[in-house]
Amino acid sequence: MASPARYFEDFTVGLRFASPRAIAMTAERIKSFAAEFDPQPSHVDESSARETLFGELVASGWHTAAVAMRLIVDSDLGLSGQGAGVAIESMRWLRPVHPGDALRVEGTVVEARPSRSHADRGVVKFRILVYNQRDEVVLEATHLVVLRRRESS
Amino acid sequence: MASPARYFEDFTVGLRFASPRAIAMTAERIKSFAAEFDPQPSHVDESSARETLFGELVASGWHTAAVAMRLIVDSDLGLSGQGAGVAIESMRWLRPVHPGDALRVEGTVVEARPSRSHADRGVVKFRILVYNQRDEVVLEATHLVVLRRRESS
Repeated sequence: MASPARYFEDFTVGLRFASPRAIAMTAERIKSFAAEFDPQPSHVDESSARETLFGELVASGWHTAAVAMRLIVDSDLGLSGQGAGVAIESMRWLRPVHPGDALRVEGTVVEARPSRSHADRGVVKFRILVYNQRDEVVLEATHLVVLRRRESS
Repeated sequence: MASPARYFEDFTVGLRFASPRAIAMTAERIKSFAAEFDPQPSHVDESSARETLFGELVASGWHTAAVAMRLIVDSDLGLSGQGAGVAIESMRWLRPVHPGDALRVEGTVVEARPSRSHADRGVVKFRILVYNQRDEVVLEATHLVVLRRRESS
């Protein structure tokens, strides 16, 4: 938590990062997340999920996306507290996430440029892949974050 | 909840939808969501947030995105249980969300085409804007969902 501050200049293109541990998806949390944020039949309980395109209980894509953020924060990217997310360039849910799945993230910094609007900031783009315990990709996304530049501090 | 089934053909380009009520963002839920999914200083408590780019407690962007999904499900779009989200084409966090903010959504179907891979399905693209109680846009996003085609049923 008390890691040294990191700046725009520390997030260089090609930098790779990974989560140190997987996060397990439980049926209970899949259902409670959905009850609050995405109360559709495929996410709220097993019996109503049977009638859906999925045919069984699956996590809300927004639950998976939120877990992906936790995996990024926990990773060795060192993003926590250094910047602010400004956009998702794209995000695709490639496979359903089921109860019992364990998710981990791998990512790469793919672009880094000075901010056009703030001389003291830079914009970093990174791409993530979220894998389940069978090493299948369940989600891919490209994040844009704004970070302070070292020169300005 | 027991609304009649809706199909791809029901989601026509130009169709507009809106949430029936706003969802209030509380400091308690902002902090507990962040503790689980996005434990960064700007989201987890007021005092650590003071040292960040934001200078005060703000909701995780993933909390706002999850609330946006709930607003879409509650809206008159009639999406619930009819399909599956496959991708976000883009998502931008345009303004911070603070404790006490009340969020609502407005959206428009912007594209509808048959699936290339499944003859019995179609892909619908809709764009949403999430507003706070001052009618400022805090988030914009473009969603892609897959829906069953009526002809196939």
